Amino acid sequence: MERAQGEMTDWHGSGMSVMEMSHRGTEFLNIAEQAESLLRRLLGIEDDYAVLFLQGGATSQFTVIPMNLLSEGQAADYVRTGEWSKKAIEEAKKIAAVREVASSDLVQFSEVPEFESWDVSTASGYVHITSNETIGGLEFQNYPDKLPVPLVADMSSHILSRPIDVSRFGLIYAGAQKNIGPAGLTIVIVRKDLLGKSAKDLPSMFDYSVQAKNDSMFNTPPTWSIYMAGLVFEWALELGGLMEIEKMNIDKSSRLYDEIDRTGFYRSPVKKSHRSRMNVPFRIHDESLEPIFLEKADESGLLQLKGHRSVGGIRASIYNAMPVEGVEALISFMRAFENEHG
Amino acid sequence: MERAQGEMTDWHGSGMSVMEMSHRGTEFLNIAEQAESLLRRLLGIEDDYAVLFLQGGATSQFTVIPMNLLSEGQAADYVRTGEWSKKAIEEAKKIAAVREVASSDLVQFSEVPEFESWDVSTASGYVHITSNETIGGLEFQNYPDKLPVPLVADMSSHILSRPIDVSRFGLIYAGAQKNIGPAGLTIVIVRKDLLGKSAKDLPSMFDYSVQAKNDSMFNTPPTWSIYMAGLVFEWALELGGLMEIEKMNIDKSSRLYDEIDRTGFYRSPVKKSHRSRMNVPFRIHDESLEPIFLEKADESGLLQLKGHRSVGGIRASIYNAMPVEGVEALISFMRAFENEHG
Repeated sequence: MERAQGEMTDWHGSGMSVMEMSHRGTEFLNIAEQAESLLRRLLGIEDDYAVLFLQGGATSQFTVIPMNLLSEGQAADYVRTGEWSKKAIEEAKKIAAVREVASSDLVQFSEVPEFESWDVSTASGYVHITSNETIGGLEFQNYPDKLPVPLVADMSSHILSRPIDVSRFGLIYAGAQKNIGPAGLTIVIVRKDLLGKSAKDLPSMFDYSVQAKNDSMFNTPPTWSIYMAGLVFEWALELGGLMEIEKMNIDKSSRLYDEIDRTGFYRSPVKKSHRSRMNVPFRIHDESLEPIFLEKADESGLLQLKGHRSVGGIRASIYNAMPVEGVEALISFMRAFENEHG
Repeated sequence: MERAQGEMTDWHGSGMSVMEMSHRGTEFLNIAEQAESLLRRLLGIEDDYAVLFLQGGATSQFTVIPMNLLSEGQAADYVRTGEWSKKAIEEAKKIAAVREVASSDLVQFSEVPEFESWDVSTASGYVHITSNETIGGLEFQNYPDKLPVPLVADMSSHILSRPIDVSRFGLIYAGAQKNIGPAGLTIVIVRKDLLGKSAKDLPSMFDYSVQAKNDSMFNTPPTWSIYMAGLVFEWALELGGLMEIEKMNIDKSSRLYDEIDRTGFYRSPVKKSHRSRMNVPFRIHDESLEPIFLEKADESGLLQLKGHRSVGGIRASIYNAMPVEGVEALISFMRAFENEHG
C-alpha cells in the first residue's frame, strides 16, 4: 500500500499516475504483462491456460461460465456446500439446465460431500464447486481427481492462500477483493481447449475467446486494480510464494481452532478436516452469551466478528493480509471472555 | 489525485485505506452515498431516476441495455454516427432485433443525421445514440425532443463536459475513464419507470432492478473507483459545476478548431456545428506531412496524437482534465510546423 502511495502521482518517473495511463500505452501494457507473469509464477500456470483480468466479480461469472462452457442444450453439474454455491446454482439456472450432483445441506454444510458420492454425468459440460465458503467456513482441502468432466472452481475467498495444482481444473475464477487486491477485478484462469465451446454468438465482453484474444483489453480494463494486484503478487513471491503463505495460514487458523476446541466453551460447526483457513465461524456453547461477546469484542477494537445474518454466531475472517498478531489478540480476548463467563 | 494520495493508507482517521474497507461498513457506505449525491447535484438528477455504479464498461452495457429495456420480441432503434455506435449496434444485434433508424455513414460520419430524418418506431423499446464519438470527433450539441420512445445515450466520452437535461433521456450510461475517474466503474442513470420491463428472469448482476434495489451493492462494487469518482465530482462542483466546465471546454476546443480553420493548411473532417469538444481529429491538407507531424510532436512531448487506426490522421483528446496550457502547447507546435512546411 505504501509503495502504491509513493508511486501514485508519478509512476516510475512517467509523470503519470497509473490511473491516468492509456490502457494501450507501453507503460500500462508492461504493468498488465508483469501482473499476469507474476500470477503465472505464483500459481504455476502453464501456457495451456489463459489468464483473464475481467470485471463484475465472481457473481458475474456465475452467468458467464455457463454461457461459455456449455454447448447447445448441455447441462452443468454443481456441488452445493453453502450460500455461495447456492447463489452460483441460482444464477446458472437462469441460462442452463443445472444438475445438483452433491450437497451437504442435510448436515447444515458442516462438511464437503464425499467425492465418491458425486453423481457427475459424462454428458455435462463441467462440474462446479465453491472451494471456500465464507459464510459456513467450509473449505475443500483437496480436490477430486477422477472426474469425467472439467472441474470449475470459485476460489474467490481462498485463492493465493496455498499452492494449487492448476492442471486439475478446467477453470478457476476469483473476485480480487479477498487475497488479491482492490475490488473491481475478477481473475479467470481457463484451459484453452475449453474456449469457443459455446455455439452461440456471445456478447463480446462475456466471451472468453474474445477476451483471451485481446489480452483482456477488448475494452478499457480496471487498470488501477490490475496494478495493485501486481504489487500483491510481487509481495507474495517476496514472502517466499504460496508454500510460505500456506504455512502462515495453517499457523494462524490452527491457533484459532485450537482455542475454539480447547474446553467446549466455544464450538466450531464444521468437521475438522473441512474447516476453512480463511473464514472461522464459531459458536459459544451458551448461545445467549454471543451478543455480549460481540459487543465486548467491538469495544476492544476486534471488529466485524458478527456471523453472517443467515447463520448467526461469530465469525473471524483471517485472509492473507491479517497478521498473526490480529489472531492472537482475538484468542486473548476469547480466553478472557471464557474466564469471566465460563 | 494528491488528496487521494494523502488519504490512501488512512482514510479520515479510520486506520484503513478505502481499498481495505468492507463495502458493507459504515465508512464505505458513506463514501458511496456521498458520491451518488454529488453526481445528482452536478447533473441535476431527480428522484425519478436511479443512479447505478456498475462494472464492465460501456461495452458491457451494449448488451445489458437491450436485456433490460426490451419486452419480449420488441425491437430497438439505433442511430449510427461512427465506430462506437456501430459497436453498440453489433452487440445489441446478438440479443435483439435492431433497426438502424438513421446513419451518417454516407457522409463519412461528418455530421449527426438530422433529427427529422430519424425513422423511429413507436413500437420500439428505445432509440440509442452515442452522443460523442471519440474516433470521428462527432458530438451531439443538442438532442431531439419529440421522440415516441425513450432516448438512450452512451455519454462515456463527454459526460460532465457540459450541463445536460437528464429528464430528456430514458437512460444515460458512461464508462468512468474519460471525465469521471479511474477505469473499472460504469455509471448508469435510468428512469425508474423503465426498470423491470424485461419479461425474462435476468442474471442478477445484469438486472437493473436488482442493482437499483441493492444500491449497486448486489455484490462487492469497485470501491476505490467509486471513491475517486466522488473526489472528481467534488472537484467539478468546486470549479463551479458543469456550466463553468462547459465554458472551459468551449474555450479549449474553440482555440484548437480556430487554429485548424485558420489557413487551410489543416482541416477538420467534421461539420462545424457537430464538432466534438472532447476529441478533435484533424488532417493536414498535404497528408504526406502527417507522419512527420506526429513524429515531431512526440519528440516535443505532445503524446498520443495519432488518429485512430481506422481513420488515420491526427487527433487531440482534450477531456476535462486537460489544462488550456496543454491545448496552447499543441497550437504553438501546429503554428511552427505550418511555418516550416506550409
